[in-house]
Amino acid sequence: MANFLDPWRRLADQNTVAGLIDTHLRGAGQVMLQDNPLTGFLFIVGITWGAIAAGNLAVVAGALVALIVSTMTAVLLKAEKTSLRQGMYGFNGILVGVAVPSLLAANTSMWVLLVLGAGVSTVVMLAVGNIMKMWGAPALTFPFVVTTWFLALAAYAFGHVEIVSMAPPAFPVEPTAGNADISPGFLITSWLKGPAQVFLIGNVVTGAIFIVALLVNSVWAAVFALTGSAVSVVFALLLGASTSDIHSGLYSFSAVLTAIALGSVFYKPSWRVTLFALLGTVFTVVVQGALDAAVAPAGIPTFTAPFVFVTWLFLLPRVNLPPHPHSPIENGILTGK
Amino acid sequence: MANFLDPWRRLADQNTVAGLIDTHLRGAGQVMLQDNPLTGFLFIVGITWGAIAAGNLAVVAGALVALIVSTMTAVLLKAEKTSLRQGMYGFNGILVGVAVPSLLAANTSMWVLLVLGAGVSTVVMLAVGNIMKMWGAPALTFPFVVTTWFLALAAYAFGHVEIVSMAPPAFPVEPTAGNADISPGFLITSWLKGPAQVFLIGNVVTGAIFIVALLVNSVWAAVFALTGSAVSVVFALLLGASTSDIHSGLYSFSAVLTAIALGSVFYKPSWRVTLFALLGTVFTVVVQGALDAAVAPAGIPTFTAPFVFVTWLFLLPRVNLPPHPHSPIENGILTGK
Amino acid sequence: MANFLDPWRRLADQNTVAGLIDTHLRGAGQVMLQDNPLTGFLFIVGITWGAIAAGNLAVVAGALVALIVSTMTAVLLKAEKTSLRQGMYGFNGILVGVAVPSLLAANTSMWVLLVLGAGVSTVVMLAVGNIMKMWGAPALTFPFVVTTWFLALAAYAFGHVEIVSMAPPAFPVEPTAGNADISPGFLITSWLKGPAQVFLIGNVVTGAIFIVALLVNSVWAAVFALTGSAVSVVFALLLGASTSDIHSGLYSFSAVLTAIALGSVFYKPSWRVTLFALLGTVFTVVVQGALDAAVAPAGIPTFTAPFVFVTWLFLLPRVNLPPHPHSPIENGILTGK
Repeated sequence: MANFLDPWRRLADQNTVAGLIDTHLRGAGQVMLQDNPLTGFLFIVGITWGAIAAGNLAVVAGALVALIVSTMTAVLLKAEKTSLRQGMYGFNGILVGVAVPSLLAANTSMWVLLVLGAGVSTVVMLAVGNIMKMWGAPALTFPFVVTTWFLALAAYAFGHVEIVSMAPPAFPVEPTAGNADISPGFLITSWLKGPAQVFLIGNVVTGAIFIVALLVNSVWAAVFALTGSAVSVVFALLLGASTSDIHSGLYSFSAVLTAIALGSVFYKPSWRVTLFALLGTVFTVVVQGALDAAVAPAGIPTFTAPFVFVTWLFLLPRVNLPPHPHSPIENGILTGK
Repeated sequence: MANFLDPWRRLADQNTVAGLIDTHLRGAGQVMLQDNPLTGFLFIVGITWGAIAAGNLAVVAGALVALIVSTMTAVLLKAEKTSLRQGMYGFNGILVGVAVPSLLAANTSMWVLLVLGAGVSTVVMLAVGNIMKMWGAPALTFPFVVTTWFLALAAYAFGHVEIVSMAPPAFPVEPTAGNADISPGFLITSWLKGPAQVFLIGNVVTGAIFIVALLVNSVWAAVFALTGSAVSVVFALLLGASTSDIHSGLYSFSAVLTAIALGSVFYKPSWRVTLFALLGTVFTVVVQGALDAAVAPAGIPTFTAPFVFVTWLFLLPRVNLPPHPHSPIENGILTGK
Repeated sequence: MANFLDPWRRLADQNTVAGLIDTHLRGAGQVMLQDNPLTGFLFIVGITWGAIAAGNLAVVAGALVALIVSTMTAVLLKAEKTSLRQGMYGFNGILVGVAVPSLLAANTSMWVLLVLGAGVSTVVMLAVGNIMKMWGAPALTFPFVVTTWFLALAAYAFGHVEIVSMAPPAFPVEPTAGNADISPGFLITSWLKGPAQVFLIGNVVTGAIFIVALLVNSVWAAVFALTGSAVSVVFALLLGASTSDIHSGLYSFSAVLTAIALGSVFYKPSWRVTLFALLGTVFTVVVQGALDAAVAPAGIPTFTAPFVFVTWLFLLPRVNLPPHPHSPIENGILTGK
């Protein structure tokens, strides 16, 4: 794969416009933690396929506009060059740009919120990057989650912002379990919609394109994505989750990301890492159900929060670090007085 | 202005009682990030005017009691002298003291909660100050927000605590947009109530007094306060926010604080800083609407949380700091095994 | 007391099985911050008494299974030896194991969630231990709280998970105050159920056993536990809290932990520390009422979150540490440009 992309890499290093395009494509690729312009390009292809199928082209337009706005905000703020060039200030932006037109009607207010949110997502990325750096951990997609939670909640406060696809605020209701016909077709659809829903798209072909997009950069990433999606579908079925949600890939998109992140990106693949990643993936399903219930009274989606919270918890433990013992703290305001 | 206050400064340095009064007045002034006793004195004048106009003198009494309790708690805990002298342990307290009688009926339980909350606000300030120091960032009014959220929520658990002015817990309802008559009077009222609502007061004269209070310490602070209020009113109108809320200054008080903080206090005024502060101010309006919806099921106000969250996000980015890349973490619990 | 346990300590140092048992018993003891196997053993005795009285033996089984799973997860992850040996990876697990069968029906899904949660609680402990270490502060029972919040919320998403004892999601309703007959019997029952409810058990005998368990390790711990429970009952009555909740010990369990932690563990007992611990204990009652209202729309209990939040706030202040002043930040993204 290295050879195949070499001419493009040389061009991107020499030509400013090609370099900018490369930066933006890598930004798209980083949504699933891949620093590869072809991966990013294929992600945009998959988004476009899904948007055409759903008849909502504002999703593609939003994705591209937000990718550019968030990356350019980083340029204007003179963000550190290497990380900028790796697309680290694009992946939260493109997710904002996909999410907003998926939830809200495409009027002027929506576009204002989308552009504003894309720019702010870069500020939030810089802030969260600084916070998490203290523990040597990544920001993940938390800047997207927090920015888009603000935008989605704001829809309830602003009359000119029209909601088209968010469940209204309500108390969570437990689903009646085990009433669906679990056919092979059900399982394959659920399995492939998992990766697709990372970009809020419920489309099997998009899911398949996304797997190819991972494959061109990392076989392990594709393997863990498919494994994560399969494991999450099975575990959600065993616990009796809403089969309609499972079938839409809604129990799998965060699990896919957790599996990729823990299994192939932040730890190097091994048997111990695989077991650890599986534990994280399974717990992501629990957290997905939990957060679905928690955000129901607010009337907003969880976005990728289950992935972010679980992956942070599984990345923060350190070798040979004892926690503070249950004994007097040092230099406390009343210590030694 | 320096000359005008010089005699008082000399007195405050030599006389213990004058020094204590000076510390308390600076505490009031720090609510809008101004280290100036005259600013603080004028804030108290503005609060008094608003309380008399609203016929709720418990607000003034509460403000003064809480200012003293929170400052004295810092003295008893032997807080670091310079920051104590700058009023850093008074501004959260006075806000607790203004908020509690604005929301709850003035009976014994309310005064117990007010005094308790004022004392605890200093402990919380010391704690949050320590946490945020790790990133070289200020605590802002978060100690007030978190303390008063606890007190306000507690009102629903305790029968002797009587709520007089909080919307009961409910799901958020989107306002019908654009139904108000936006006259020049509407705009000017909304504009001046913004600064006044920093202290939970919906009074135009109080707002004007507060602007003068800023002016005696910093022209830039006054300019950014007025700009922040104006921008927030216009942006909230454009998005179709509740005109009654806009008219009460409820979309502007956090925006005023964000504008002062980003535009004139934590960054030095310049064109780039002004644009950055405007981006933050506009996003504060979005976050105000978002948090209004988020806290509705809990039945409590946002207080200055929109200011705190947005300003933190805009102060935390650092020059030349790359976030953790999407590659293996160091010293992780499964790294290198 | 040292002499009494010496033979066991020698055995535990030499024999692997005895060492493992000792580690697990200390894990139980650390729930109330005591590094003592006899304390832990008596806690398990108290849990067993309560479970038999309530006719729910799954609580004892769950406690033991989760204690073992969480401790063994720490062994598998090669957690730092000294803290492991002190039971630092057992106390959150045993709490998960007591809480899950107290809330959910004992079917296969419950046991899956219980074992999964116990294992994850150790990962969360390692993560939170790392986070809080940055400020030289302990993780407390936050890993239990966050893990079990996820499990409890998930019950609303999964059809095979059956809720037996959680109030359904609802808006908080203020209790009508002062309608109960406050007899000496009421006071003594409320007082002793406080310590018992640390393990979610509403049983007077269990409470008394727990006090003995504290006494064998630390007289101060027992004194502060009893004082904390008494103070919380009186303060909750004065504010007009639900007398049924007070009588069940629900206003006291977090207060008991705050009193032990601040009064006898993290600060050394003294008059100033006692006053500080009392302030924290009283505020824990307010936070208990506040969080009860806050989690009502989610339909989950607060668990020991009031203890964790208040104790963190009271442990984080540091001697001679000024907060960031209200002046320009260093190295900010727009500083000096």
